[in-house]
Amino acid sequence: MADECVFCKIMKGEIPCCKIYEDDKILAFLDIAPVNKGHMLVVPKKHFETLEDTDSETFKEIMLVAKKIAPVITKAVNAQGFNLGFNNKKAAGQLVPHLHIHIIPRFENDDLTIDKQPTKKYAEKEMRETAEKIRNLLKK
Amino acid sequence: MADECVFCKIMKGEIPCCKIYEDDKILAFLDIAPVNKGHMLVVPKKHFETLEDTDSETFKEIMLVAKKIAPVITKAVNAQGFNLGFNNKKAAGQLVPHLHIHIIPRFENDDLTIDKQPTKKYAEKEMRETAEKIRNLLKK
Repeated sequence: MADECVFCKIMKGEIPCCKIYEDDKILAFLDIAPVNKGHMLVVPKKHFETLEDTDSETFKEIMLVAKKIAPVITKAVNAQGFNLGFNNKKAAGQLVPHLHIHIIPRFENDDLTIDKQPTKKYAEKEMRETAEKIRNLLKK
Repeated sequence: MADECVFCKIMKGEIPCCKIYEDDKILAFLDIAPVNKGHMLVVPKKHFETLEDTDSETFKEIMLVAKKIAPVITKAVNAQGFNLGFNNKKAAGQLVPHLHIHIIPRFENDDLTIDKQPTKKYAEKEMRETAEKIRNLLKK
């Protein structure tokens, strides 16, 4: 537990939440600042800041809970799809430094732009060079 | 394999890709329409259309590959974070109907809005009623 962490406070019952699911390792609750109705967070009870800090066992459990619940939420709010996503570190939009996955129900033609990002182009050879760099770093 | 699926064609070698990682069940390659440098897709070799169709074993393997590679890509392109996300079904922006997770490196103050969606408000009692509806459907 991290003393100043808002999600750890939710785990300890110091801050209320609209709970959807709980087991010994995971808590899932509605986001209080939803970008669509039914927007939910799946959170490990133990305090991990980022994906790099999180052990594989916990990560798999989070993902299986998300996999199970996402279609149910989608059905509950009469949505037609969902986004499942981690924002890892501040640059990626991680606001609470306690690992969490967003489940966001999606409606046809809603106002969200999660999937509507401007695409960029690699310079000549840059794509292959980038792939090579990643592959080389992976080998280390 | 699905005959008309672009990712199945990549698996069969009929369409080239900038491969990053491969094992007997998973292929990971650079997105040809990157929203940031290093934008990668992790894809099961077997054709599953959506998360609902995908078995838990395959899903866990996809997620563990993504967990392993995402920080490496981030380092390779000198980014400061990453988004990890599924767009499940057309309403959520799924363009290729073959399950895939996006790994998107993020740079401080880049132009992406994945994490910058307008928030909405629940009507009075709507949040609790939504949670209850989801919990009830989960029990079924």
